[in-house]
Amino acid sequence: MLRHVAKRSFGSLGIPQNKLKYIPKGGFYPKGFKVGSVASHVKKTGAPDLALIHSAKPCTAAGVFTTNKFKAAPVIVDKENLTLKKNEDFHSIIINSGCANAVTGNGGLSDAKDIINYVDKALHGTTYPVSKTLTMSTGVIGQRLQVDKIKSGIDNIVTEIDSQHEDWLKCAKGIMTTDTFPKLISRNFKINGIEYNIAGLVKGAGMICPNMATLLGLIITDAPIESITLQNLLSKSVDKSFNCISVDGDMSTNDTILSLSNGQSGGELITEQSGEVYEVFEKNFKEIAIELAKLVVRDGEGATKFITIKVKNAKNDEEAKQAANSVSNSALVKTAMFGKDANWGRILCAIGYSEIDVEPTKTNVSFVPSDGSAELKLLVNGEPQLVDENRASEILEHEDLEIAIDLGLEGKGECTFWTCDLTHDYVTINGDYRS
Amino acid sequence: MLRHVAKRSFGSLGIPQNKLKYIPKGGFYPKGFKVGSVASHVKKTGAPDLALIHSAKPCTAAGVFTTNKFKAAPVIVDKENLTLKKNEDFHSIIINSGCANAVTGNGGLSDAKDIINYVDKALHGTTYPVSKTLTMSTGVIGQRLQVDKIKSGIDNIVTEIDSQHEDWLKCAKGIMTTDTFPKLISRNFKINGIEYNIAGLVKGAGMICPNMATLLGLIITDAPIESITLQNLLSKSVDKSFNCISVDGDMSTNDTILSLSNGQSGGELITEQSGEVYEVFEKNFKEIAIELAKLVVRDGEGATKFITIKVKNAKNDEEAKQAANSVSNSALVKTAMFGKDANWGRILCAIGYSEIDVEPTKTNVSFVPSDGSAELKLLVNGEPQLVDENRASEILEHEDLEIAIDLGLEGKGECTFWTCDLTHDYVTINGDYRS
Repeated sequence: MLRHVAKRSFGSLGIPQNKLKYIPKGGFYPKGFKVGSVASHVKKTGAPDLALIHSAKPCTAAGVFTTNKFKAAPVIVDKENLTLKKNEDFHSIIINSGCANAVTGNGGLSDAKDIINYVDKALHGTTYPVSKTLTMSTGVIGQRLQVDKIKSGIDNIVTEIDSQHEDWLKCAKGIMTTDTFPKLISRNFKINGIEYNIAGLVKGAGMICPNMATLLGLIITDAPIESITLQNLLSKSVDKSFNCISVDGDMSTNDTILSLSNGQSGGELITEQSGEVYEVFEKNFKEIAIELAKLVVRDGEGATKFITIKVKNAKNDEEAKQAANSVSNSALVKTAMFGKDANWGRILCAIGYSEIDVEPTKTNVSFVPSDGSAELKLLVNGEPQLVDENRASEILEHEDLEIAIDLGLEGKGECTFWTCDLTHDYVTINGDYRS
Repeated sequence: MLRHVAKRSFGSLGIPQNKLKYIPKGGFYPKGFKVGSVASHVKKTGAPDLALIHSAKPCTAAGVFTTNKFKAAPVIVDKENLTLKKNEDFHSIIINSGCANAVTGNGGLSDAKDIINYVDKALHGTTYPVSKTLTMSTGVIGQRLQVDKIKSGIDNIVTEIDSQHEDWLKCAKGIMTTDTFPKLISRNFKINGIEYNIAGLVKGAGMICPNMATLLGLIITDAPIESITLQNLLSKSVDKSFNCISVDGDMSTNDTILSLSNGQSGGELITEQSGEVYEVFEKNFKEIAIELAKLVVRDGEGATKFITIKVKNAKNDEEAKQAANSVSNSALVKTAMFGKDANWGRILCAIGYSEIDVEPTKTNVSFVPSDGSAELKLLVNGEPQLVDENRASEILEHEDLEIAIDLGLEGKGECTFWTCDLTHDYVTINGDYRS
């Protein structure tokens, strides 16, 4: 009964042609980690649906989780275990896709614990009072995990994981749900002669909103980082990346970003007091988080446009974010972008109901083209400009677009936010997700 | 470039077949009002786009307006004039569709004043220090009114208005934008031998959200009501009607609900102290407001489903409304309803991020079928139920559906909210609204 059929041009891997450029052909991966994925057959398609990340050396760990009141079992279990072990002495992360293990009551909690203990046993030959494994789940809500299938998947995956580029890519594929391409980023850099590697993986697609959504993200590094520093760094980075994106404004029960660092790079322990080492490391870590977040928007369900919203001169940063958030969640703005319609009135309207301080006569809105050509002023100090509609159409033909909003207030608050358009394909994908 | 073409079966009036039942064939209209609409040709289609409501006797007036920070010129002018004249001594309301006169600066304010003075002149042969006419505009933002066209429309309309059913229907048609059918309701009732009439008109369609959106509503009565009482009654009624509906969560720069009462019914002046007269009148007035609000949802842009969300046992009424609002604005819930998918996890998820108090183990969610058959329990005290998917599909085949949410808390807070689904047609309509 869904009348619109999503049409895409797919490449050899079943990945849309226009997304192939986002898949790396190689990378720099943190030393001492083995990763991969297998098909545990929870997903009926036989696609890989169980991923594992493992370090033989113990890791410092950090996590940022959904604020949804209905937290999924893996979220509850991870939070508890991170607290119990003070973010120290973790070795693995097991991730299943296809079933979110959310709203599954006490049974769901037992299932999650059962799985992580089973991973410990498979990798270390024993279980522990508090597991050394963290876990993430994504997929349909309200269904119990098929624990037997996952356990047999774990039996397979522990012998499959390895440390090559292909293994990392397999891992990124194993966590996909409605994503159309695997999202993997890595970089390496030297500080004082020590070489550090960071790899990031993420899955997203729908239900993405500023306070994180069915978003599973992983930032893995071989740097030696103090646990409190890693946690702070992750929280700060998420705030400027995953909390600054929106696909549909929904926020899931499962959102989780985890980080592991095993110290295999060598070098001094990095703390917030480490000076330049910390600063360079922080910059790279944050940039990885932002790149991952942007990939999520690139692959927003049904998206055809990648929209950057830059707000400046708001009362403060918080209000800038509120305005950006409101614009990026407006169904009317998002459909206008899909329709390549320079309907800037809707942008203004969304700022107007965001409950922030605005002075209509000081507000400016422009489109900034992605090809570096001059910006197109739509509203200057509250006065609508005579817009050259041909020029507007030209700008809106590009996949990328920046909406620049200058609120003209004295507070100097600013925020950069990323979102996508709202399309027929979004409706199609979400109208029959479960079928 | 919009690939999906909205298909509808249209009746003889260009109105979808399935909406014809909402158009009244007759009515009971307030005495002493003349109404109607003409084509001023602001709309390129030649459809009627200028409506007038006029009472020879002076009216008490009341208004409820958008809270958007970018208020359109007619909103600013009406608010000011209502205040200046203490809600007394108004005769007319002039409404234009096709141009919202929003974000048009000082020029837009002059245009709005110019129009109402022109109406006064045409009807009373003179202008006044403060106009006796209120005004509303709806349509594209950021474009100036075509004042000459509208003035020539006013010249025509003052000789066209009359008091028959057809005139009221014409008036309802004149305020439409993307609405697919005119929305008109009327009723009459006797209290202590006096016969009162109330007529309601509304336009909606898109950009509808709890704090009112491009929603223009009119409640017109021949009852004699004290001005402060009319204002309070309107505010209270809007709170339980137009502020309890959502189409896309956007809130416009132009939302206005106005009320006029001319006292032509005779009988005592109605005040909040009038006892039974007030109570019966209030009940009828509120019911008209609720019926009008529901018609707006029925005609939500692209909507195929009419969804009632009933929340009970929340901490308080405010939190019940917040939960209902969150569910009714969730793109994921709305696309699932379009796809007839009993994906109740998304409902729960939207409650979970609404920032209200919930106890997962006390939460209950059911589908209540519109045919009076037994409800389908989806979640009981936080435990997912084994859902008979065939039964769920049966229920979701109906145009109407109720989602019952029992939060199981002690506060007894409750709220009824109305929304529609999110469809391909919504995207199509809003992807090229201006073209």
